[in-house]
Amino acid sequence: MESTSLLYLQITKSLKHQIETGVLKEYDKLPSLRKICIDYDVSMNTAIRAYEELDRDGYIESIPKSGYFVHRRNHRFRSIPSVTNPELFTKNDNQEGVVTTMVKNFDNATIHLSSANLGPELVPIKKVNKALLAATQTLSDSGTIYRRQGSLKLKIEIAKRTYGWGGNLKDSDIVPTSGSMDAIAFCLLALTKAGDTIVVESPCYFGILRLANSMGLMVVELPTHPITGLEIDAFRLLISKRKVAACVVVTNFSNPLGSCMPTENKKELVRLVTLHDIPLIEDDLYGDLYFEHTRPKSCKAFDEAGMVLWCGSFSKTLVSGYRVGWVAPGKFKDQIERIKLYYTLQSSVITHEAVGNFMESGAYEKHLNTLRPILRDNCYQFQKTIHEYFPAHARVSQPLGGMNLWIEFAPGFNALELYNKAIEKGLSITPGRAYTLQNQYLNCMKLSFGLKWDTKMERALKLLGKLANE
Amino acid sequence: MESTSLLYLQITKSLKHQIETGVLKEYDKLPSLRKICIDYDVSMNTAIRAYEELDRDGYIESIPKSGYFVHRRNHRFRSIPSVTNPELFTKNDNQEGVVTTMVKNFDNATIHLSSANLGPELVPIKKVNKALLAATQTLSDSGTIYRRQGSLKLKIEIAKRTYGWGGNLKDSDIVPTSGSMDAIAFCLLALTKAGDTIVVESPCYFGILRLANSMGLMVVELPTHPITGLEIDAFRLLISKRKVAACVVVTNFSNPLGSCMPTENKKELVRLVTLHDIPLIEDDLYGDLYFEHTRPKSCKAFDEAGMVLWCGSFSKTLVSGYRVGWVAPGKFKDQIERIKLYYTLQSSVITHEAVGNFMESGAYEKHLNTLRPILRDNCYQFQKTIHEYFPAHARVSQPLGGMNLWIEFAPGFNALELYNKAIEKGLSITPGRAYTLQNQYLNCMKLSFGLKWDTKMERALKLLGKLANE
Repeated sequence: MESTSLLYLQITKSLKHQIETGVLKEYDKLPSLRKICIDYDVSMNTAIRAYEELDRDGYIESIPKSGYFVHRRNHRFRSIPSVTNPELFTKNDNQEGVVTTMVKNFDNATIHLSSANLGPELVPIKKVNKALLAATQTLSDSGTIYRRQGSLKLKIEIAKRTYGWGGNLKDSDIVPTSGSMDAIAFCLLALTKAGDTIVVESPCYFGILRLANSMGLMVVELPTHPITGLEIDAFRLLISKRKVAACVVVTNFSNPLGSCMPTENKKELVRLVTLHDIPLIEDDLYGDLYFEHTRPKSCKAFDEAGMVLWCGSFSKTLVSGYRVGWVAPGKFKDQIERIKLYYTLQSSVITHEAVGNFMESGAYEKHLNTLRPILRDNCYQFQKTIHEYFPAHARVSQPLGGMNLWIEFAPGFNALELYNKAIEKGLSITPGRAYTLQNQYLNCMKLSFGLKWDTKMERALKLLGKLANE
Repeated sequence: MESTSLLYLQITKSLKHQIETGVLKEYDKLPSLRKICIDYDVSMNTAIRAYEELDRDGYIESIPKSGYFVHRRNHRFRSIPSVTNPELFTKNDNQEGVVTTMVKNFDNATIHLSSANLGPELVPIKKVNKALLAATQTLSDSGTIYRRQGSLKLKIEIAKRTYGWGGNLKDSDIVPTSGSMDAIAFCLLALTKAGDTIVVESPCYFGILRLANSMGLMVVELPTHPITGLEIDAFRLLISKRKVAACVVVTNFSNPLGSCMPTENKKELVRLVTLHDIPLIEDDLYGDLYFEHTRPKSCKAFDEAGMVLWCGSFSKTLVSGYRVGWVAPGKFKDQIERIKLYYTLQSSVITHEAVGNFMESGAYEKHLNTLRPILRDNCYQFQKTIHEYFPAHARVSQPLGGMNLWIEFAPGFNALELYNKAIEKGLSITPGRAYTLQNQYLNCMKLSFGLKWDTKMERALKLLGKLANE
């Protein structure tokens, strides 16, 4: 026993060392048990015992039918930010000033540490061009003429992918839009009127807040957990006290928190909105960018009553410039189609068909399979650099997908000041205040890691840390 | 004198005969005076006298520096419809039912006699494809990445063309949009709120009415002349009695009337909106499709105070499927850009750049030069066929551009019934009721002549006449 015990400890020690020093990176596949037996000249029982020990210690995890992988939790460098605590019953303040400043300053930044989009190096541009060229052939009249129904191919491909997470949609369930903001705008235009109340996460993507504000909607921000997203209890409390016209949630890897609602929470949310007849606008634009082994489900998967308006986009995963998004509006389809017709007639069909061709050829799945580990690694590099160069009190979110990081500095820290200092140096960040209609998150900021990680980016992030330390 | 007199009469008789029998078509150029001298063996004075006589009789017209042309007025087959007379101070009714029926039935029609768009045969598809392919080269990152400022080339080309009618805009004055409905929607979202009053022509394109209605706006319809458009006196009266948040006018070759406001009326309208601080949303989407010799000016040409939001589109002139439009919002630019950002972030940049490339190469001017005589001829064929096959009491508008015809039947005629009969035969028309929020135009309908004129179209129009006679 003594010697077996030593043997398995040798194995765990060696692998722990490899993981801690980064020789084995998070999500890397570990050698098979058979290979361990050969490499260390041990019995299968010893190999199994070693892996069980590593699993218990949180170094590795077992994926059924796939093998053992380095566990990502091993790389939590910093504490995660607090669960947010916005006022449930308060008047909306405004954050237009912050957003306008950001928009105005956008071109003054040479390195964008906050733009939630892919860098051009991460986009398969040549293949996309090929799919666009193909669209001039696959569409009758090369897509030059009105076609109110949009690209059928795109709708079919979007619908097909939903089978991966239990969505089971048909092409006729999909209404194409010019990106997911367009989709959300159509939903709010169709379902709300000025003076109505809508519910969002907090912090919430500033575009949604600006849109709601410009429509004259009252916005209630809900407490949100940096890992599990919208706090269901708070939602339950709110809808028991106040009439809500719609709920807008980024369920998977939200911007800015990066949170992902657990399946059980999604089910419960759908149950509640169905019971209370509240349309749920689910913005799932980051769902395909998961770092773990399977795509998280969407609320739409549990939507038996048609209460979920499932919105998505290719802006974060493939081609932001093409303006291709969609909404599967459930039972609100007629209303959404009417609003779309009134506001914009139809979307650009040739760019939609191009994405349809790209998907149909299998290139989209391949692209995502390449992209996900890159984004995961970018996230790791951001977190590591932040850990090393940012003030010790800074907490960092721990997203399991997407491209957004939420940084919470100590109370009293002024992130708007940091924003101003950073923009002077040509760096863009997003101050936390942009993500709320209340006077909060002044000590927070958002960074995005969708651009290529290189020494320029690393230097920029280090410089940002230096500015934050001043 | 006797013989000279006879000689010039011989010339006029011969040319009148050629014009009346269609050997010389409207807008055809007549032989030069020099050629007349040679052909008829007469003196220059006799030739001049003959042309002066033809001019006085309305057969031809002289265009400075260009020569003599067959006058179009010669081809007024029917009386024009009445000046419209909507109620100025009344509640808005609704026409959603009619529009919904039309949208639902759209695919049941095999021949669209009412779609205001170009048939594919009239679109230079190969050249457009080439311009799209070029855009993957002329845009950095092939236009796959966010580019909030849009296609600079498109903005430059749009601005350049305004010099042709005294617009004198710069590229920075132009905000690109996804078609002109998108542009109008942004304008109304930026400038109005639910409960506000806007002013439109009557009849008015149903898309604008549906949009306004869905926004909760009150719509005042103004009396409109089938030739000269919006009645300025009525506008003056209205704004003296009621607060108006915005005015939406299709100044050139409107849909459905085909009217074109005279330059003096445009000047006066701009003077009035400036004096009363009423934003003027000018939808100029048909302006380039003029049948006469020069492009009509836009109100924007007289806009010194920045009160005109000049909207346009390539949907009627080139590529409806690409969704390329714009607005030059004058002093409201910041508001419009903000609304655009909130609702849709940006337009599809690659299709916009494609149109920019198409214009830059000179292909757009060439295309328009080819297209205009075709549309003019289509209009002639429609009017001729209507004259021959429609009930004698039907009046027809006399557009000098665009692609829309307004038909007014005798009072009591039911155009909705005609619509139903026509759709059963696979023909689409638009009943007049769609173009108003009041209970009027029940005896009217709109036809469009943007599709290729051929024997199929001719048979369809004759069949429609037969149905109208029943």
